This record gives sequence, structure tokens and C-alpha cells, in this order.
Amino acid sequence: MASRPVDVPALVQSARDGSPRAVARLISLVEDEHPALREVMAALAPHAGNAHIIGITGSPGVGKSTSTNALVAAYRKRGQRIGILAVDPSSPFSGGALLGDRVRMQDHVLDPEVYIRSMASRGHLGGLSWTTPQALRVLDAAGCDIVLVETVGVGQSEVEVAGLADTTVVLLAPGMGDGIQAAKAGILEIGDVFVVNKADRDGADATVRDLRHMISLGDRTEPGLWRPPVVKTVAARNEGIDEVVEAIDKHTDWLARTGHLRERREARAGDEIEAIVLAALRRRMGNLRHHDSVDRLAADVVDGRTDPYAAADQVLDALT
Amino acid sequence: MASRPVDVPALVQSARDGSPRAVARLISLVEDEHPALREVMAALAPHAGNAHIIGITGSPGVGKSTSTNALVAAYRKRGQRIGILAVDPSSPFSGGALLGDRVRMQDHVLDPEVYIRSMASRGHLGGLSWTTPQALRVLDAAGCDIVLVETVGVGQSEVEVAGLADTTVVLLAPGMGDGIQAAKAGILEIGDVFVVNKADRDGADATVRDLRHMISLGDRTEPGLWRPPVVKTVAARNEGIDEVVEAIDKHTDWLARTGHLRERREARAGDEIEAIVLAALRRRMGNLRHHDSVDRLAADVVDGRTDPYAAADQVLDALT
Repeated sequence: MASRPVDVPALVQSARDGSPRAVARLISLVEDEHPALREVMAALAPHAGNAHIIGITGSPGVGKSTSTNALVAAYRKRGQRIGILAVDPSSPFSGGALLGDRVRMQDHVLDPEVYIRSMASRGHLGGLSWTTPQALRVLDAAGCDIVLVETVGVGQSEVEVAGLADTTVVLLAPGMGDGIQAAKAGILEIGDVFVVNKADRDGADATVRDLRHMISLGDRTEPGLWRPPVVKTVAARNEGIDEVVEAIDKHTDWLARTGHLRERREARAGDEIEAIVLAALRRRMGNLRHHDSVDRLAADVVDGRTDPYAAADQVLDALT
Repeated sequence: MASRPVDVPALVQSARDGSPRAVARLISLVEDEHPALREVMAALAPHAGNAHIIGITGSPGVGKSTSTNALVAAYRKRGQRIGILAVDPSSPFSGGALLGDRVRMQDHVLDPEVYIRSMASRGHLGGLSWTTPQALRVLDAAGCDIVLVETVGVGQSEVEVAGLADTTVVLLAPGMGDGIQAAKAGILEIGDVFVVNKADRDGADATVRDLRHMISLGDRTEPGLWRPPVVKTVAARNEGIDEVVEAIDKHTDWLARTGHLRERREARAGDEIEAIVLAALRRRMGNLRHHDSVDRLAADVVDGRTDPYAAADQVLDALT
């Protein structure tokens, strides 16, 4: 791939000075796995770690985009800079995949203090791509106070999004996500704040009761642990949004006070390092396979001159 | 895991002398990932490579066990030693998983020249376990002339079994597997010999025609390539089995004459080496993760003292 040369220090400085263009360009470098990516990440490192990362997940139709839109308005009232990463784990395509979401977030499209980015993010094994944490790092280092990662709850992706976030907000709607459904989907474990949206509909109170009951049965009721609150909203009318922000604030304080913030972030960084290492090892192995020793060793195995374990030892030596 | 000490040279010699107990013990060492496994594989290496490995696959109900049973009888008439590995990719349990198959193969259970072994073989990523090729190596080195690997065609497993075999026999039954179904399932590409079993049923000729037509549309009609024959059988009445054996013989000759046998076996050995290397690297990474440098590097990433790529470089150095 021929690549335009990139003036990384200038680009990072522009992003930090508040240029949406520079932020967009940095995220594109991440998506394209551009050769300058390592330099970009090194330049961003000293500036990262200030943003609070909020994951927002829920089934299709619960009102994620409307809720995100309303939350952004609430944080903007505080004068905070916001990044929004809309991740579509079902699409292998970048860019316009979430046009609908962008339209619904149009309240903020022209606000220079709000960065909105859609990312396709299907990884090689069907999960989220390893590029998602790197994109979060860009938004963080660019000076965002809050980064919202929004994803459709499909299969594993909501659990993975929880792994990327400091605070995970799980959205449900009456009749769709009662407590038992939530337990089955594994979201009781990942939610730090539960929001029952469309609370003007029938069954909202029953859903809230169900959820509270299921949470009380879990192992998160021990002293010192965070007990996830359940908040009712009608995001389309901006009802209950301040209560959601308040619940997120309380969780943020709890994370900082107890050392859990540090713990979550270290675990996350460890996962990220591990993913990069494994990708590098697979690449090295692929190179060995077709140009070098593995083919020769395979011939030796076929001829009985060596066995697969002894051959693997030699490959391990060659990889290092 | 506490392990009994194993006298590997004596065990390998017993297996080669024709002791079914010794063969069974060696395969158990493979399944248990016994510490002596490396020594076993080294001791087997000079003796492997003589068996012709025949993969037998097909959907449930096409008559795989009955056909295998009939094929074994045919090969036994030639005085050949036979190994049968019945692989159940849907089961995480070893041992009795395929009791039904064993019962159906009871014609040969008491024949000391026929080794029958069931293996559960669900790998970590849902495919066949990496232990399957090692078990094949045991049967090969134990002096089997023919090793039959039988597996239910579920998802990817039939394609994977084809990757382990010298000759892959795909079984279909009338009405179940017409040509288009076969094409969809991807089995047109993997079959070296197609068998339409239960050929006394309605629709057998149509299935044969369909298959031949689909094969003629594929890219296997070029000169020099193997064109898979389609054979009709009624395995339960031993009809057509000699024709299947003949087709396998022809394919065996073709493989040897054209150099494809060597090519397939080298590719297979390469895959096997790669799987062992990746398993070893993951193990090393796991050790690093919890006792050593990854956790420390993750803290440095969180503090902005380094970035994930630079940290990954250090882990790669430590792994080597």
C-alpha cells in the first residue's frame, strides 16, 4: 500500500488543539493500519488516560442513538469535549455503515467540541477489531473529557465493549429486556448502570423491578462492590437523562476511590498488548511458512528425520 | 498432573510388534498430553509415513459406520493391518462417545490386526483438536497399512478431516445430498471419491447424475488433475464396496505418480508444526501475563510512559 507521508507531531498537535480534521485523520490511520501508526501511538501515549470512557450497549430498538444524543447534550452543558465512537460489529465495512446514527445525532454534528466517528469493527475471530481500543486512545489523547462508545448488543460484542469502557451503560426497553432475558444475555454482569428507556410504555416499572431483583440475586451485593443502579428514561423527551449522568458520575467516583479504575485500565492495556503481540507472531509465522524453515522442516517430518515437536522447537528458535 | 512413568522405547516396540494394548496406551498419552508425549513422537518419527490415510465423512444417517465396516473387511481380505479413528468433533468427552459406532463395527472388534479408537476432538476454537494428527501418527507408526478416519460432517470438521487424509471419501445418500447441496456444503472441493450409499433407494441415479454434473462444472476437469469418481453402494449388503476400494487404489496411484502425495503430506506436517508452535507461544504468553512483564508494561501504558506497540515489542523480546 502506497501511503502519503504523515507529519505525526504536527497532526497530534492539531488534534490536541481541537481540529476535528486532525482527529479524523488519526482515526483513519488506525483503521488503515498505516505504517505511521506506531509513531502515532508513541506520540499519543503521554496525553492519554484523561478521558472517562463510557460504553453504551443494548439490543436494536432500545434507543441507543437517542440516548447517546441526549447524554452528549448533558455533558456539553458542562462544557466538556466529547468523543463518540459508534462501533458496528456486524459490518465489515467502514464509514457510512451507521449513517442513520449520524443523522439521529445531528444535534451535535456541527459542534466542534464533539467528535463523531463510525467504525466498522469486525475482528478476525468475529469479535470487535483490535483497532477499537486504538481509536479510543486517539479520542482520549485529543483532549476529550468523555468518550462514548456505542455498540449494538450482538453476540459477544457487548461483553467486549464492556471490556473497553470505564463505565458500561446497558439500555433496555419495557417488554424487551426483562431481568431473566438480561441474565441470559450475560448483561447483568457487565452493566455498571442500567437504563430502562421508553419508560412511558407499559411494563416499564415491571422491567425495573425485574432487573433490580436479578441484580440483588447476583454476587454484586457484597459490601464494597458497586451495586448497579436502574434508571428510567424517555430519551426522546430528555426525561431521566440527568439521573443517568448522575449515576455515571457516582460510578466514576467509586472507580477512582476504590482503585478499580486503575485496575480496569491496566487489564485493558494488558489485553491490548497481548493482541498486538499475537498479531505480530502470526505475521512472523506466516513469513516463515512460505519463505523459510517451516516448509523444510515439514519435509523432514514427512521423511521421518524429525517429529513435529522437535520441528516446532526449531521454529520457536527461528521466531525469536 | 501426576503421571505414571512410561518406558517409551518398550511401548513403541510393543505397538510395532502388534500389541493393541500398546497402541491404545500411546493414543491415551496423546489425548492426555502426557509429559512423555515429546519422547513418544520422537520415537515414532522414523516409523511413520507408510500408512495410507483415508478420510471418511458425510452427514448423519448416510451410513458411515456401515461403510467403514465393509471397507475394513475388504482391506482385511488383502491381509492389511487397519487403524480406525472415529472422531467426534461435537463432543468434548473422550472414550465412549461413539459406542454406537463401535457396536456397528463389531465384525472387527476381536481382530488383532484392526485397531479401533474413538476420539472426542473438539479443539479450542471449535474445530478438530490438534491431537487428531498425533493419534494418526501413532496408528501409522504402529504398522497400519491403512488408517481410516471417520467423522460426522458437521460444520468445518469435514474440511478439516480432508486436510488430515491422503484420500477423502465423501458419502451421500439419495435425496439427502444432491449436487447442489454438496456444492453448498463445500464438499465438492474436498472429495477424492464420492460414494452414493443406500443406492437401492429412489433417487440414487439422480443423485449420481447431479454429483457428476456439479463435478464437471468445477475446476477439477483440467488435464493432470484428479477427477473424482462417483460410486454407488449398498454398504449394508456389501454391494459396490470393491468399486470403492478400486477408486481409492486409483487415487493412491495418482497421488504417488504425480507427487501430490508428498505435497499433501508436507502441507499437513507444516500445519501440525504451526499448531504446536502457536500453542507453545500462547502458553508462554499466559505465563508472562500473570507473573511477569505484561502486567508491569500495562501499568506503564496506563501511565503514558509507553504505548501498546512499544510494550508489545518488549513482550516479543521476552518471549524469545
